[in-house]
Amino acid sequence: MRLSELSRTAGVPRSTIKFYLRQGLLPAGDAQARNQALYSAKHVERLELIRALREVAGLPLDAIGRVTRELDRGWQGDAFGEAMRAIDARTPHARARRASPELDALRSEVDAVLRAQPWSVDDPRHAHVDEIAATLLEVRKRLHPDYPVASLARYAEIAWQLSEAEYALVPGGAPAPIEARGDDLAEPMRRAIVGSVLFERIFTALRRRANAMRSIRIARGLDVPPAR
Amino acid sequence: MRLSELSRTAGVPRSTIKFYLRQGLLPAGDAQARNQALYSAKHVERLELIRALREVAGLPLDAIGRVTRELDRGWQGDAFGEAMRAIDARTPHARARRASPELDALRSEVDAVLRAQPWSVDDPRHAHVDEIAATLLEVRKRLHPDYPVASLARYAEIAWQLSEAEYALVPGGAPAPIEARGDDLAEPMRRAIVGSVLFERIFTALRRRANAMRSIRIARGLDVPPAR
Repeated sequence: MRLSELSRTAGVPRSTIKFYLRQGLLPAGDAQARNQALYSAKHVERLELIRALREVAGLPLDAIGRVTRELDRGWQGDAFGEAMRAIDARTPHARARRASPELDALRSEVDAVLRAQPWSVDDPRHAHVDEIAATLLEVRKRLHPDYPVASLARYAEIAWQLSEAEYALVPGGAPAPIEARGDDLAEPMRRAIVGSVLFERIFTALRRRANAMRSIRIARGLDVPPAR
Repeated sequence: MRLSELSRTAGVPRSTIKFYLRQGLLPAGDAQARNQALYSAKHVERLELIRALREVAGLPLDAIGRVTRELDRGWQGDAFGEAMRAIDARTPHARARRASPELDALRSEVDAVLRAQPWSVDDPRHAHVDEIAATLLEVRKRLHPDYPVASLARYAEIAWQLSEAEYALVPGGAPAPIEARGDDLAEPMRRAIVGSVLFERIFTALRRRANAMRSIRIARGLDVPPAR
């Protein structure tokens, strides 16, 4: 399809598409006559991924460029991890993190506790140890000076349980892993990133609800049903 | 103690304390001679709460004022809920929410599914139904047009389980509920809000880790241990 049709199909203005092409967010089309190129369904999918990264993940253009560069590397790239790290990096608490020997020591301990989980995989890109250690340092500074790193194990078990439920609840079944899909990456990546972001929000709200209602039950002397 | 000692003890500049007094974030001290007032440990605690609301929860001054106004109402106020709502309201996705008949209908369905949980309490201030319904609408728009509201029940069960673990893991045991503490509210409120925010971050990172490692295991054909 030509640029005008790509614009209509994806619902993205021609000027924006041209900008994405110049920035390398969108791969060039098949060159035809002078000033003419043909675009494919892959370009539509890439535009939809870019929109999701802006609208759902809230990423700025430079971070989106890092995600699409990973996508250009095919299944050996790490577009998903890059997106997750970019989302984390934009939070005020991530920007406030400072290196310290105390944090380094805690990071090793956190890493050891989490690696001991039977589902752990040796892949630092998805380990999230930095965020967890930095937050645990805040817990110790502001709440419990001796908060034990070992307590993370129980949180990790529940995270694995949630993950099991999340995969089981995907309508139509969990999708085939990205690596099994050849080069058809933009759309599964969009679905993975959007799903991760939206269900994170849903679960966060449910956790807040559960904790608030547990507090209310305790305060009012109501029974507190055991978890199933 | 006098203003200068309050400033030293809390580590907050005198000018800032005076500003908080004028804004009503901090209650007036006991008036003594002209231009003199005495402050107590409660003022120190209130200043520490205000600092936590700024530094950990990332709230602006007007939102902090709404939290301290609830605190001024004693245990009948809802400082915790106000803080949680203010944190949510500052996210870009909350600001983007639009009312619609579709959203209203979904909100009723979500409310019904969540109320059916045995731990639910009839208290709209802590129900978080608006966020969940708005996010579910996004899920339907961007991922699964027919995503069933009933699937929330399983997420809610796991949230309750997490909540059970969180209370059990508080060092020294879960604190007495706010309502049982008379008027000594600022410090337990600070701990409740800081704890909620920090462990939300930790669990969010663990969920991302669990989902990423589950994907990697599936993609590489490794075994995927069942949740315990």
